[in-house]
Amino acid sequence: MTTPRQLKLGFMLHGVGPGWGDWRHADAHPGASIDIDFYTRQARLAEAGKFDFLFVADSVHITEKSSPHYLNRFEPLTILSALAVATSRIGLVGTLTVSYSEPYTVARQFASLDHISRGRAGWNVVTSWLSGSAANYGKPQHPPHEVRYRIAAEHLQAVQGLWDSWEDDALTHDKAGGQFFDPGKLHALNHQGAYFSVRGPLNISRSQQGQPVIFQAGASEEGRNFSARHADAFFTASESFESSRAYYKDIKARAVSFGRDAGRIGVFPGLRSIVGATEEEAERKYQEALALIRIEDALPMLGRAFNDHDFTAYPLDAPFPDVAAFGHDSNRSTAERIVKLAQDENLSLRQVALRFVSPRREFVGTAEHVADSIQRWFDGAAADGFILVETLPRQLDAFVELVVPLLQARGIFRHDYSHETLRGHLGLDVPENRYTSARRLAA
Amino acid sequence: MTTPRQLKLGFMLHGVGPGWGDWRHADAHPGASIDIDFYTRQARLAEAGKFDFLFVADSVHITEKSSPHYLNRFEPLTILSALAVATSRIGLVGTLTVSYSEPYTVARQFASLDHISRGRAGWNVVTSWLSGSAANYGKPQHPPHEVRYRIAAEHLQAVQGLWDSWEDDALTHDKAGGQFFDPGKLHALNHQGAYFSVRGPLNISRSQQGQPVIFQAGASEEGRNFSARHADAFFTASESFESSRAYYKDIKARAVSFGRDAGRIGVFPGLRSIVGATEEEAERKYQEALALIRIEDALPMLGRAFNDHDFTAYPLDAPFPDVAAFGHDSNRSTAERIVKLAQDENLSLRQVALRFVSPRREFVGTAEHVADSIQRWFDGAAADGFILVETLPRQLDAFVELVVPLLQARGIFRHDYSHETLRGHLGLDVPENRYTSARRLAA
Repeated sequence: MTTPRQLKLGFMLHGVGPGWGDWRHADAHPGASIDIDFYTRQARLAEAGKFDFLFVADSVHITEKSSPHYLNRFEPLTILSALAVATSRIGLVGTLTVSYSEPYTVARQFASLDHISRGRAGWNVVTSWLSGSAANYGKPQHPPHEVRYRIAAEHLQAVQGLWDSWEDDALTHDKAGGQFFDPGKLHALNHQGAYFSVRGPLNISRSQQGQPVIFQAGASEEGRNFSARHADAFFTASESFESSRAYYKDIKARAVSFGRDAGRIGVFPGLRSIVGATEEEAERKYQEALALIRIEDALPMLGRAFNDHDFTAYPLDAPFPDVAAFGHDSNRSTAERIVKLAQDENLSLRQVALRFVSPRREFVGTAEHVADSIQRWFDGAAADGFILVETLPRQLDAFVELVVPLLQARGIFRHDYSHETLRGHLGLDVPENRYTSARRLAA
Repeated sequence: MTTPRQLKLGFMLHGVGPGWGDWRHADAHPGASIDIDFYTRQARLAEAGKFDFLFVADSVHITEKSSPHYLNRFEPLTILSALAVATSRIGLVGTLTVSYSEPYTVARQFASLDHISRGRAGWNVVTSWLSGSAANYGKPQHPPHEVRYRIAAEHLQAVQGLWDSWEDDALTHDKAGGQFFDPGKLHALNHQGAYFSVRGPLNISRSQQGQPVIFQAGASEEGRNFSARHADAFFTASESFESSRAYYKDIKARAVSFGRDAGRIGVFPGLRSIVGATEEEAERKYQEALALIRIEDALPMLGRAFNDHDFTAYPLDAPFPDVAAFGHDSNRSTAERIVKLAQDENLSLRQVALRFVSPRREFVGTAEHVADSIQRWFDGAAADGFILVETLPRQLDAFVELVVPLLQARGIFRHDYSHETLRGHLGLDVPENRYTSARRLAA
């Protein structure tokens, strides 16, 4: 008997919630994004629900116009290290930009998290899409889109190379012989590239899972190729079942073209479900969520996809403006999807902005309804799993209590963890150390 | 009744131990430096002993000749964030170099640790003294000594400025009014200096203690001025009571000259005590420690103070060689102290190398003896406290069990924590936010 394909679940740790107005809900904790007790409670709850991983988003730039959940929050590596101690099985995926970081430090911090958590770390590789970030790092300008992915590929190459500095049997710890390690199994990287120069070796060894898992959310042409070539898991937008199916098919085909096993890599759309004990309760909660959305907040949120463009100058109820004129380099693929949606459905600016920030109705309802929608996407080749984003307070609780048991009963989600590491949870092999491989192949 | 001046105690988390051969002790755990359970046990034990803080050293460069405790270890910010959850009162001080880091990232990660620990973070500001570090960060060369302290001063200025981005009452969280924060109390830094350009604001607010505590270990002329001007606590070498007294007097005089209150800043020499239940047991353990020291390990350890100079070419039992010829820029003050010691006592290379890495006999003995030595330094203006460095396995246990109660009985060490934050433990005020000060002074 073969185990049927299993759904994977991640949980996005957001503190105050991803929406501009989420903190204003009566039950919301406005200081949640810097409250370790809040994070610990959510992490343990997701682990009780047997989620595969926690996911922490990030950005390195705010202005007074930024959304509340960007303004004041934990830095990913530090909060995930804290949660490594508060949990024991769930994976820990953190976002870190290649545009404003050094491979040696990135490699060290993720390797350290990987040891602290005993093999549960993952890195969501981003190139940053807020052009203001450059000014926080003394750079004259944010690198253009194409260059960012070239930087990303080289950065990741250096980090993964550093992670292999120590072969798995390098640390001999031979007290009698006085040999702490075998110097033939410690390797300098000597990377010299267009953007980085890193000698190595790294001052930390590999964990139980070999190397942290690579997550990516590339959606543009360059981003998809980068993801398909390098990433183990893809965090994607989820405008519709159809668009997710198309993405799923495309990214897996690209992965195969790069010689990879499509069955081993996971596509995970975001999931803003709203679960109620009854249809009525779910509908009431959905209306609560919509009531938190103000058009004056939705406009700048939309604007972020277009280089922080100011949409307040346009009539709200006229057709969506012609945005080609002011460009959208920094988050191109999101911008392109929005423009296409507006054209396809002939939407006004107000409609586009509100649609952009609202939860999708398909995932609002009873647990049975939400499980059905999840299964439709899962069985329909639109998702290998989801990253749950808590739209209203205590929706993680509702999901764990009501939806998870249904997914388990349907045989598509585990009853308990069967592995200790994030790679184990996601069905990924431990990559052999490159130097060990080379020696084995040469022998 | 006034409380008498209180001794402060830090504990250096070193994993395998600071000596080259410490890992070879029969009771040593050679993989301790990447074992979260080992770190957690020590952190909780130090907290049970009411220590003021944990201290994590760092470096960003290894070679196959590095000491075992440098080779394979946790990165400071991640391990301290993990320990923040495993403890509740003890301070958490991490080392991070200004030579290979960006102020925005440093400010974020320490502020995040500060929130995770609810006001227990400290930053040990270092400039790095291993010239090989540059090659891990794509830099043509390690900056020269004088430049490193200019970089350090500007880096720290930027970080401390970013930490004040949010005034303490900026986050209004007014659900009814829809105001998450008061934009007049969020401040961009707009720092433009010789080495860094950082706009800000930072995307995380201040903790209970206002800002993380600044530690420093500057020993050269530039280092002492930097410390005296900027640091709250000084980690110092401890070659002798006399040299520590001289340092203590000098650094406090410099601090006063910069307008600071000498009583508020603390001088903490390293303390490699060896405690036994009896004199005989202590002596036996001391001999165990000495037996772990090999001259072939001591020579490269000594060499690190002289730009990784290779001392193996010199006769071991001839007078200490003339080292002026090959320079010692990267760790100048340590090198100068060693040269002076060799000249003053007419020591051979072997004697210098072994002295450099051996525990000091003054702190070897019964708990009563060690407490006497501690009190001599404390009462004699050679120390405001110590940072305990575990020379042999379970010496932290012995110190907490046997020495701490004596210090408490003598009235110079607390019976329990009286504060929640690291600033509280060290008797430091919460610094008022600079923008709040400016507004108050202008009013």
